[in-house]
Amino acid sequence: MAKPITDLDKMQREREDMKIRMELLILRIQAEFCHALEAEETSGAKFRVDRWRRKEGGGGISCVLQDGQVFEKAGVNISVVHGSLPPPAVAQMNARGKHLPDGIKLPFFAAGVSSVIHPTNPYVPTIHFNYRYFEVQSEDGKPMGWWFGGGTDLTPYYLNEEDAKHFHSTLKRACDKHDPGYYRRFKTWCDNYFMVKHRGERRGVGGIFFDDVDTPSKEEAFLFVESCAEAVLPSYLPILQKHKDDGYGYAERQWQLLRRGRYVEFNLIYDRGTKFGLFTPGARYESILMSLPLTARWEYMHAPKPGSPEERLTEVLKNPRDWV
Amino acid sequence: MAKPITDLDKMQREREDMKIRMELLILRIQAEFCHALEAEETSGAKFRVDRWRRKEGGGGISCVLQDGQVFEKAGVNISVVHGSLPPPAVAQMNARGKHLPDGIKLPFFAAGVSSVIHPTNPYVPTIHFNYRYFEVQSEDGKPMGWWFGGGTDLTPYYLNEEDAKHFHSTLKRACDKHDPGYYRRFKTWCDNYFMVKHRGERRGVGGIFFDDVDTPSKEEAFLFVESCAEAVLPSYLPILQKHKDDGYGYAERQWQLLRRGRYVEFNLIYDRGTKFGLFTPGARYESILMSLPLTARWEYMHAPKPGSPEERLTEVLKNPRDWV
Repeated sequence: MAKPITDLDKMQREREDMKIRMELLILRIQAEFCHALEAEETSGAKFRVDRWRRKEGGGGISCVLQDGQVFEKAGVNISVVHGSLPPPAVAQMNARGKHLPDGIKLPFFAAGVSSVIHPTNPYVPTIHFNYRYFEVQSEDGKPMGWWFGGGTDLTPYYLNEEDAKHFHSTLKRACDKHDPGYYRRFKTWCDNYFMVKHRGERRGVGGIFFDDVDTPSKEEAFLFVESCAEAVLPSYLPILQKHKDDGYGYAERQWQLLRRGRYVEFNLIYDRGTKFGLFTPGARYESILMSLPLTARWEYMHAPKPGSPEERLTEVLKNPRDWV
Repeated sequence: MAKPITDLDKMQREREDMKIRMELLILRIQAEFCHALEAEETSGAKFRVDRWRRKEGGGGISCVLQDGQVFEKAGVNISVVHGSLPPPAVAQMNARGKHLPDGIKLPFFAAGVSSVIHPTNPYVPTIHFNYRYFEVQSEDGKPMGWWFGGGTDLTPYYLNEEDAKHFHSTLKRACDKHDPGYYRRFKTWCDNYFMVKHRGERRGVGGIFFDDVDTPSKEEAFLFVESCAEAVLPSYLPILQKHKDDGYGYAERQWQLLRRGRYVEFNLIYDRGTKFGLFTPGARYESILMSLPLTARWEYMHAPKPGSPEERLTEVLKNPRDWV
């Protein structure tokens, strides 16, 4: 586990504060996830670890493994930042139902872990997850609002129903421990969010996605997010292990590259997090853009052959299914 | 030259109307440009020609040559469309200084040619150009406003000063025929527009870019746009011919792919035309996205070696120069 972003004295003193508890959670999740992936990488490649500071307040740790045998590009970032919310961010939050005063500078705190794994083998899906805690404070530093957000979603290149079921059931179990309605709600939210609108297709087979979770209590909301973050490895590792040595050829690789092009389209045109990141002054764009694949491809008017495995995937991206 | 989009009878009847004159200009430019490129392509590959209709009104012709020997991906589109302006488009135009009534449905007409050429050889730059005519009408069909827009810009992978000078001088000569202040103004506009803001670098060595040209008269503005569109081939063809057989290796190809990633970033995050297109109902996204390269690459924390030709290019992208 990497050294925290926040000063150690402060972490010990304020260890009951949610800001500190969230920082510890994301540090642990980052470390566990990176170690588990390194154990699967056969080339001996390790994560490169970059610590960075944001001059406006806070910083982060970016872990990236690139050009491995099992992982073409794998990024696992954490950031713990504070500062003043830019007015467009306040407007965006109020449009989502918050009641923040506008026109004044609002101090904020945000801590989150964010990861995108692009494996080499086209039979291993790409996975993305992000879990975050957000606090808005009044000008004199009093908490004015807080919420958690996050999600985990899977982007296969070839549809394997058994894998999709395993992935969704694991996430559902994590949700069910906290609220019987969560999985259904957050699964639908995920299908709606990861939409490449101009193509009328989702980027993958979904998972869960949520924002603004602030019930039933801060403690319970944190435990829910912790369960989700802990469910990432068991949801994904068996799929990775099962397929990382599957045989494939040129055609499967080309299809994977085309689908990665769609992933780029979603992330650069629609993803709220990417935009929020890139438009934030002092943002570390290399960490934000680690989500982009090492290689992507765009062919004019490509259409999968009728009845092919490629078309079977496309079908499910246009019409999301229930997996559990 | 392809058959026009507009009915031939109407074209003959209304041949003095700027809408018809612009349609004829872009048909001719598309044909000339495609023929000139086909003559350079050594594999025998030809442009695929797709005609499409837009159910909301009008249509277009997309010409794409993909996976050639000289051209990795070359797209030359024209579109001639009409319909009702969506309110966000009206708002955007008023923000640019138009005085269009908002809250009512405004009929519009737009005709333009748009092209992006991604050659195979990393020593041949990518070129983009777009020339368009726009008309807004009142509800009873009377013209309420019209303007021309467009530009031509060059994206080299390796800096060749002689080429940059040739390119800019050719564009300057086209501008100078119409207004001695145009080139300076539109060169600066181009440097400002094609900015990958989060990286603080431009996508290439620029060229010219303008919008809302409606002076000194409709006739003069059209002739200026015609000169610009006719300058594309002489600005680019000599550069293509000079370098299309240059020797290069793996490292040059990798650098080209990385720079193509930056091109994707600009087009999907910042380009007004791409966004306007993708968010317009009934848009043909395959024609809009033909601008994306066949292949692109994103490496985490890539930095060119100090003193290398790759760094020399980056330097000029951060600090645009005067070329004539």
